[in-house]
Amino acid sequence: MALNGSFKRIVALAGGVGGAKLVAGLAACLPSGALTVIGNTGDDFRHYGLHVSPDLDTVMYTLAGIAHPINGWGIADDTRYVLDMLAHYGEAIWFSLGDRDLATNILRTHWLAQGWPLSRVTARLCQQLGIATRLLPMTDDPLATVVYTLEHGRLAFQEYFVRHRWQPTVQRLVYEGAETAQPAEGVLEALHEAEAIIICPSNPLLSIEPILQVRAIREALRARRAPCLAVSPIINGAALKGPTVKIMHELGLRADVVGVAEYYGDLIDALIIDEADRAVRMPQQCFVTNIRMLSSADRRRLAEEVLMMLGEVHP
Amino acid sequence: MALNGSFKRIVALAGGVGGAKLVAGLAACLPSGALTVIGNTGDDFRHYGLHVSPDLDTVMYTLAGIAHPINGWGIADDTRYVLDMLAHYGEAIWFSLGDRDLATNILRTHWLAQGWPLSRVTARLCQQLGIATRLLPMTDDPLATVVYTLEHGRLAFQEYFVRHRWQPTVQRLVYEGAETAQPAEGVLEALHEAEAIIICPSNPLLSIEPILQVRAIREALRARRAPCLAVSPIINGAALKGPTVKIMHELGLRADVVGVAEYYGDLIDALIIDEADRAVRMPQQCFVTNIRMLSSADRRRLAEEVLMMLGEVHP
Repeated sequence: MALNGSFKRIVALAGGVGGAKLVAGLAACLPSGALTVIGNTGDDFRHYGLHVSPDLDTVMYTLAGIAHPINGWGIADDTRYVLDMLAHYGEAIWFSLGDRDLATNILRTHWLAQGWPLSRVTARLCQQLGIATRLLPMTDDPLATVVYTLEHGRLAFQEYFVRHRWQPTVQRLVYEGAETAQPAEGVLEALHEAEAIIICPSNPLLSIEPILQVRAIREALRARRAPCLAVSPIINGAALKGPTVKIMHELGLRADVVGVAEYYGDLIDALIIDEADRAVRMPQQCFVTNIRMLSSADRRRLAEEVLMMLGEVHP
Repeated sequence: MALNGSFKRIVALAGGVGGAKLVAGLAACLPSGALTVIGNTGDDFRHYGLHVSPDLDTVMYTLAGIAHPINGWGIADDTRYVLDMLAHYGEAIWFSLGDRDLATNILRTHWLAQGWPLSRVTARLCQQLGIATRLLPMTDDPLATVVYTLEHGRLAFQEYFVRHRWQPTVQRLVYEGAETAQPAEGVLEALHEAEAIIICPSNPLLSIEPILQVRAIREALRARRAPCLAVSPIINGAALKGPTVKIMHELGLRADVVGVAEYYGDLIDALIIDEADRAVRMPQQCFVTNIRMLSSADRRRLAEEVLMMLGEVHP
C-alpha cells in the first residue's frame, strides 16, 4: 500500500462543489505539486459579456481557501455591489456573481480576449492565489453542456441549472463542441503519467461526462494502466447535492450507487460508496466508507482513505 | 430677455467634472427635456476589456444626483471590492473604477458588443437612472484623444491623464479617428434646432476640442444662428481643475481667459469670465460673474445667469 507521501502524480477529475471538496482534501494530504485536477468547463458561459467558468472557479476558490463556506461556490464574504447596480439599471439578476468573483471573470475575459487559452488563464489565476495544485480545464476549446427539457426545450446549461433551478425535466443532454474539442495542454500528459486517477463525487452526467466527451481524454482513460477510482456522488439513493438523482432518473438510468457504477463501467476500477449503501449488491469492486464531507477534516480523512484504497485496487 | 422657462431647446457641450456641474445647474433651471448635452468621448478607452466613457459617465452620474461629491467623477459611496480583488490577482490598479461604476461599464460593453451604438447605450443608461436631460455622445465612432509627450512619446489619453497624472509635457494632441467620425444620431438635429448653445467650463483642448473635431459638429457650430456662449475654465490664470493652463502653456497658447477666448474664436459669441478677470482686456464680448461652482446652489445660480446672458448676446 502506497503511503500518501509516495504519490507524485495523481490526477483528479472534478466538477463543482463536491468535487472541489475532495480535491481540497487530496491537495492537503499529497506532496505539493503532486495533484493535477482536470476541471469541467461544460458549464462555462458568457454573462454580460464575461466568460464565467463556474466549476473551475469553485475548485480554484476551494483550493485557495477562500470559497464561500456555505454555498461552496463563490468567495467567502463576497459583496454584491456590482449586481445591485445592474439591478438598479433594470437588469434581472438570476446568476449570482459577487464583486470579488466578478474580478476573476473580468480578468479571465480580458486575458482570453488577448488570445490566451483558458488553461493559461487558469494557471495564472491559480498562481496569483498561491495554489500549488495544477488545475487544468479539460479543454481550451468550446464544449458546452446543453439540456433539452420537456417544459422549455433547449436550455443552455446555466439557464437550466440556475435560472430554472434544475426543475425542468431533462430529456436529453448534448455536449456541443465535443466532436472537435481537444484536451487542454497538459491534460493527456497528466493522464498518461498518473500513478492513479480519481473521479471526484461530482454529477456523472453534468460534471464528469463533459470531461469524458473530449474524445482523447476518454481514450486516455480507457488506455490507462494506473488504477482509477470514483467516489459516488449518491448516498442511499439521494444526491449529496444538486440534481444527480433527478437527472439519472429522468434519463432512465438507475439512480443510485449501482447506477453510478454502471454509468462509469470499465472507465473505473472501483467505486467508493457510503456506509449507508454497504448492503447494496454492486456490479464491480467497491470500497465502503463515510463519504460525506461536512468539514475540512472530513475532506482530508476521505482523501487519505481514497489514496489508501488505491493500493487495494485490482484492475 | 428670455425667461428660463421659455427655453425649449438648449444644447450644452460638456467634458468632465466642470462641464457636468454646469449641466446639472442648467437641467435644474430649464424645463424638463429642454436640455441636450453633447458629451466628449475622446477620453473613452478599454480597460480590462471594458469600454469606459469617463466624461459621459461623469455627466450622467451628476445628472442622476449620484456623483461622488468630492471627486466629481465616479459614484458617491462606491466601494472597491472588484479593484481590490484585481490587485490581489497582481494587477497594477492605476485607474479607479468603483464597483457600481464597473456595473455601468460592464453593461455598456455588453450592449456595445451586441451592436448597439454608444448613443443608444447612453440613452438606456440615462433612462434607467431617471435622467430627463438628453445626453448624446458626440459620435458613435472611435475618436480618441492621443497625447504626444516630451518624456514618454505617444500616450493614450488615460495613460497621460490618470497613470501619469498629467505631468508629462504635452508636445502635440492628436484626435485619432476625427477624419471619419460622424456625429451620433441626434447631435446635428439638436444643434440645428437649438435656441442657444453653451460650451461648459471644460478643458478646451481635452474636453471640447474632441467634440469639435467631428467635422460636421464644427460646421454646424459655424453655421449656427443661435447664440453660443462659453464659460471659461480658467480664473485668474489658473485652471478650475486639471491641466488646462499647463497644457495651453505647453502648446504655446496664452494660458488665461484671453487664451480661451482666442481658442474658441468665432465659434462663440461671448465668453463668461470670473470677476477675478474683470480687468482683463478681452478680444470679444464677455460677461463677468462668479463662475466658481462650489455648491449645488452655485451651479444653479450660474446656470440661471448664463441663460439670462444669452438674451444679451449680440452675434
